[in-house]
Amino acid sequence: MKKPKHHIFVCGSFRVSGEPQGVCHKKGSLSLLQYMERELSDRGLSDVVVSSTGCLKVCDRGPAIVIYPDNVWYGRIDSESAIDEIIVALESGGIADKYVIA
Amino acid sequence: MKKPKHHIFVCGSFRVSGEPQGVCHKKGSLSLLQYMERELSDRGLSDVVVSSTGCLKVCDRGPAIVIYPDNVWYGRIDSESAIDEIIVALESGGIADKYVIA
Repeated sequence: MKKPKHHIFVCGSFRVSGEPQGVCHKKGSLSLLQYMERELSDRGLSDVVVSSTGCLKVCDRGPAIVIYPDNVWYGRIDSESAIDEIIVALESGGIADKYVIA
Repeated sequence: MKKPKHHIFVCGSFRVSGEPQGVCHKKGSLSLLQYMERELSDRGLSDVVVSSTGCLKVCDRGPAIVIYPDNVWYGRIDSESAIDEIIVALESGGIADKYVIA
């Protein structure tokens, strides 16, 4: 298989029992996920995969995102402009410092 | 924040609209996730985090797991003994070749 160059996990607060709950989901992370997928597609970044996840356990910094294998954790991703900044950083090989969970 | 040494993502076939569907979920990946969390806890592997995910897009090899930042992809993880083999490999710094998605 061809592994993704970057694999972006967006916390969707899923619980094993089914319905999503929790901070990230309540703050709209799943609509941001859809925006992110569209942006990546528009920019032709076909080697980036996006997956939603269950709770990433950084709820106090949510909505949260982690990018692997880069191992970069972002928090407070609560707007389309935050997503834009992250994608721009990804394209340039950099990091969007403002959102890094330290 | 302290980043996990290994972050295991178990495909739970979640869809943005809510209810999980798809191959991995139907084959019981979420009960295996619970087994995995218990095993990791029993073995004292506190630096390993497990998250469920939406579709990982390797449905034909499901139930699927990816471990980051290692970037190791496993498929056909359909039994507790498969989970055991993966955890034993993780503890020893190796890879459970039998399940690797090539």
